[in-house]
Amino acid sequence: MISSPPGLIARRPLTIEWGDCDAAGIVFYPRYFAYFDACTAGLFQQALGMKQIAWAAAHGVIGIPMVDTRSKFSIPCVFGDEVVVETQVTAFRRSSFDVTHRLLREDGSLAVEGFETRVWAGRHPTDPGRIRGVPIPPEVIAAFG
Amino acid sequence: MISSPPGLIARRPLTIEWGDCDAAGIVFYPRYFAYFDACTAGLFQQALGMKQIAWAAAHGVIGIPMVDTRSKFSIPCVFGDEVVVETQVTAFRRSSFDVTHRLLREDGSLAVEGFETRVWAGRHPTDPGRIRGVPIPPEVIAAFG
Amino acid sequence: MISSPPGLIARRPLTIEWGDCDAAGIVFYPRYFAYFDACTAGLFQQALGMKQIAWAAAHGVIGIPMVDTRSKFSIPCVFGDEVVVETQVTAFRRSSFDVTHRLLREDGSLAVEGFETRVWAGRHPTDPGRIRGVPIPPEVIAAFG
Amino acid sequence: MISSPPGLIARRPLTIEWGDCDAAGIVFYPRYFAYFDACTAGLFQQALGMKQIAWAAAHGVIGIPMVDTRSKFSIPCVFGDEVVVETQVTAFRRSSFDVTHRLLREDGSLAVEGFETRVWAGRHPTDPGRIRGVPIPPEVIAAFG
Repeated sequence: MISSPPGLIARRPLTIEWGDCDAAGIVFYPRYFAYFDACTAGLFQQALGMKQIAWAAAHGVIGIPMVDTRSKFSIPCVFGDEVVVETQVTAFRRSSFDVTHRLLREDGSLAVEGFETRVWAGRHPTDPGRIRGVPIPPEVIAAFG
Repeated sequence: MISSPPGLIARRPLTIEWGDCDAAGIVFYPRYFAYFDACTAGLFQQALGMKQIAWAAAHGVIGIPMVDTRSKFSIPCVFGDEVVVETQVTAFRRSSFDVTHRLLREDGSLAVEGFETRVWAGRHPTDPGRIRGVPIPPEVIAAFG
Repeated sequence: MISSPPGLIARRPLTIEWGDCDAAGIVFYPRYFAYFDACTAGLFQQALGMKQIAWAAAHGVIGIPMVDTRSKFSIPCVFGDEVVVETQVTAFRRSSFDVTHRLLREDGSLAVEGFETRVWAGRHPTDPGRIRGVPIPPEVIAAFG
Repeated sequence: MISSPPGLIARRPLTIEWGDCDAAGIVFYPRYFAYFDACTAGLFQQALGMKQIAWAAAHGVIGIPMVDTRSKFSIPCVFGDEVVVETQVTAFRRSSFDVTHRLLREDGSLAVEGFETRVWAGRHPTDPGRIRGVPIPPEVIAAFG
């Protein structure tokens, strides 16, 4: 339950497409993870005021890879549903952070929740083929309010 | 940590395809959920000795919808990797159950873990448009050893 | 080359998401077919003034399954690109029709073209497990101008 | 109808998974393009005796991007179907080539055909951000018989 969390919440409308649904006529749940990935990208673009390719370059990082993600499915969504995903960062740590998604139906009911832990990742200093967490700059954290 | 769990473990070899990877050259993580969904279907087919459409009909259920799933990503997989997914039921309850997946690389290292909670679901008796959990038959549980 | 075709053209903006791209950093081309499927659904919704589930029921059909589709890829699209797809029906026949998609980049250049032949499909009168083409109603054709 | 084509034909068995199917219970057709992409990769791996990342490096190319692809859908496939895709190169030109796929059901009937035109692509000599077709080496062509 999220009650009055501080900070930026991005709201993204989505239409459930035919190709997102499975043979039971409901969204094939891996698609929610793809939705949520796009929502996190959108949240960061909104907070940092530029596209991911630009803010990653500006901060010298390669991106925000996922290390742990979970979703809970309460109400199925079907072809043609128009939903909204509310996305926010719920915790920043030294080099990792948590994101929460709430997918809401038109009547406001909570259909799906998503939880992510991602890393603020740069290239390893001595092995460019590897990545590692690097400290999240204070100005990035500040941009989320 | 799974140490010597009892019961059936299905092992499915997988080749990481080009289309499973993202612009970082590693598997786009929602694809792991699709892999794992197929692995659970494979485990049930192996345990029950028939395809899902057949065992669902035989038991009068509509399927095993997901209610909660999580994955942890330890080592990225890339195009061309040949991996194995080990899948097992780790708990049966009255009308729900848990499945665990372990995706192993060729050197045996654990790259991705998946966790699922699913429902043994039938049609609602008075509202055929809805589904609900129904008791898992003892012979189904027994089939997993 | 489409020069001044008559009739309704739907325009749908799309943002290329991370998960749509492959390890070369460009859109994995099967994703264009999924985009285009959603665009055709959008065109019909716009023309017929209701969602597909509603117009299919209203006309007693099960949908508009694909029988033949082709795409030509001229310019690759990358993560973060904002594009527009222009979609129109280019031919109606007795029980089938053609759809063309033109995916345009921000500078107006034509990146991808899509071509579809679909069937206006109903249930087979004596075998409900099969479908067959049925005549497209004149009012449907008229709705596309 | 392909009668007695010369050269290597790769045969790949596939199981239709739940997540490949749409709300009509049949394969969502963009998935066939993803299947076929994997089949082309498999054909080249078989012909050239190494994985794509290795043969691309060995020949100094970046891959075989698609420029034009088409599929024809004759018989729908459903969850659990076990099919085979037969894949072959049907034409080699200076720097491009054609691939054909035939997806066969268990009874041998032809369900889906796929056609691809791809480019043997290297980096542009003066602009590394661009790619261009380069001559296909005779030994590559010879490897397909």
